Amino acid sequence: MGPRFTEIIRKLPPVVPFVPPEALERSNGRLLQVRVGANESAFGISPKARQAMCEAVERVSWYNDPEGYELRTVLAQLHGVEFEQINLGAGIDELLGLMVRLLVQPGDPVVTSLGGYPTFIYHVDGFAGQLHRVPYKDDCEDLQGLAAKACEVGAHLLYVANPDNPMGTWHTAEALRGLIEAMPADCVLILDEAYIEFAPQEAILPMDAEDPRVVRMRTFSKAHGMAGARIGYMIGHRDMGAALDKVRNHFGVNRVAQAGALASLGDEDFVRGVVQEVERGRREYVELAAELGLRTVASATNFVGMDIGAGDRARALMAALLERDVFVRMPGTAPLDRCIRVTVGTAAERAAFAMVLREVLPQIR
Amino acid sequence: MGPRFTEIIRKLPPVVPFVPPEALERSNGRLLQVRVGANESAFGISPKARQAMCEAVERVSWYNDPEGYELRTVLAQLHGVEFEQINLGAGIDELLGLMVRLLVQPGDPVVTSLGGYPTFIYHVDGFAGQLHRVPYKDDCEDLQGLAAKACEVGAHLLYVANPDNPMGTWHTAEALRGLIEAMPADCVLILDEAYIEFAPQEAILPMDAEDPRVVRMRTFSKAHGMAGARIGYMIGHRDMGAALDKVRNHFGVNRVAQAGALASLGDEDFVRGVVQEVERGRREYVELAAELGLRTVASATNFVGMDIGAGDRARALMAALLERDVFVRMPGTAPLDRCIRVTVGTAAERAAFAMVLREVLPQIR
Repeated sequence: MGPRFTEIIRKLPPVVPFVPPEALERSNGRLLQVRVGANESAFGISPKARQAMCEAVERVSWYNDPEGYELRTVLAQLHGVEFEQINLGAGIDELLGLMVRLLVQPGDPVVTSLGGYPTFIYHVDGFAGQLHRVPYKDDCEDLQGLAAKACEVGAHLLYVANPDNPMGTWHTAEALRGLIEAMPADCVLILDEAYIEFAPQEAILPMDAEDPRVVRMRTFSKAHGMAGARIGYMIGHRDMGAALDKVRNHFGVNRVAQAGALASLGDEDFVRGVVQEVERGRREYVELAAELGLRTVASATNFVGMDIGAGDRARALMAALLERDVFVRMPGTAPLDRCIRVTVGTAAERAAFAMVLREVLPQIR
Repeated sequence: MGPRFTEIIRKLPPVVPFVPPEALERSNGRLLQVRVGANESAFGISPKARQAMCEAVERVSWYNDPEGYELRTVLAQLHGVEFEQINLGAGIDELLGLMVRLLVQPGDPVVTSLGGYPTFIYHVDGFAGQLHRVPYKDDCEDLQGLAAKACEVGAHLLYVANPDNPMGTWHTAEALRGLIEAMPADCVLILDEAYIEFAPQEAILPMDAEDPRVVRMRTFSKAHGMAGARIGYMIGHRDMGAALDKVRNHFGVNRVAQAGALASLGDEDFVRGVVQEVERGRREYVELAAELGLRTVASATNFVGMDIGAGDRARALMAALLERDVFVRMPGTAPLDRCIRVTVGTAAERAAFAMVLREVLPQIR
């Protein structure tokens, strides 16, 4: 006799969505020298955010505001939507889990791309949804294929990242509009825009938070450099926010993160500078790859996919880089897994990465 | 046509587990002057924690370690258990939700006290568990009654807070041992020890993380003064941790909180000082109540229940205090609701509270 785990829990296999760089350091027995694998910002946080966060630490004995009033007010103004159409979460990851919980009963169909964001898949598995995966097309999410699959299976939920992770590619607002029109009328699209600050204007779907079928996810983890603070938000219909309020962890978005996010929104110059640095870094990576005879995948994110030709070669390269204390990641699924995914580092990190890559690449079969 | 919410979500009524003081300030149109309602620590955080948290802000562009390796290692040593028997969460609240998710399918029986912690009840409702509530007995959770109810209904999960919130009372380890022996063999006890640092030694159940039926919850929100950082942990059997790992938000415990918690564990003097200050404050509240002819409930926490005689009177007093910008809370259920619950504030806050209470109490019918 012992705990009676639910049927879902009993059937779930053990799983780790991402092995963190810290775990690699522990198994290597030494620190990583170049950490360009987790799409963290190499350009830190805004000085205004830093100051606000340290000030918030002074009052961290108080609970955070569970309504996130100040931050949501500013975000609503920023996006030209209503306060109730903004909902905070402890990163997009938490919001993805909550969206699945709201919309997916065991066996309900959910559509995503084959090789898409593992944490979304993790949450669908965690609520026993029935996953249907559509292969990428030319390293892009196949919007027509996704819409067709959603219609075919009667999907409750459809996940698209724009720009995409792990490939970095993007679709235009017009193409996304086509997807929304083609998907079933009772399907909800999660549009994960974690990397949207790095994308061209044409990739940004006009804001329409009255549409109950589209939920957009944004984060402070990337361009704002606050990955370790855990704060993201959702823009969507107020009914979705009301449903979230029925089950979410109301005090889950910590005080320091709320203060930092608010301050970072007030420092547009900083974020603009980060985006420019990232563009410079992407160009460097493209030139580096060209020099070494590698193709790159066009990216609208803070990382670049370098095409190593085949999954085995890419895995061998990733291992060889790790052996030299350089941390990168790669897609888990063919044919995407012919690439390694390299986050734009600082100028020094890019130089260090380039040096090591030039050395180890020739040794890869 | 629109989103197809799950049956559970459709049936759940809108609910707010706690109205935060910030919402009271917004509806009042002015700031609270004495915030002694949410059992937040009036004595802040350790200087070591403050420094560690500000340093962590410098690296907040990096994701936190999802394995929480350093902190769990230290906690395991502290409690004399294995690393795998410690699991972190974004506060006890998040861990409560996850425990319900692991063990409660729709309709499964869950036992708690009538008037017990609202957030646990919120999570049980959120997973459509069948709640059975046992009345308090002499302002204490009725351990025999809870065990009997758990046997009667075949509870999957049983929640007890020791010391208790909202009453502040406590049971001895021996009494808890009796509860564990009397409850069904396949029932899991969540022992919420959020306030354990303030309790006498006799209230602390000896550590036995090999028992799969007992899960203990601890937090940095109270004695460590880190409520706004969102970090707590669970001590329990490794099978429980393994199950958690299948569904938890792996990157959910932010970097700043992990760093602060680690540093705070290294400052035992600070926490000891907080506990002493809280004891002094409790004595002051007892004396104040006696001066005003009020009974108090014996407390092993950082708050004191003052008996106002009846629910209507207590609610009127709470409203009158709020009118004077003094924030307290009170239990939501009779007969507990004859009390207001006053958190131990700083000496200045206690003096301000006493002054206002002396003025408004005579006006309450």
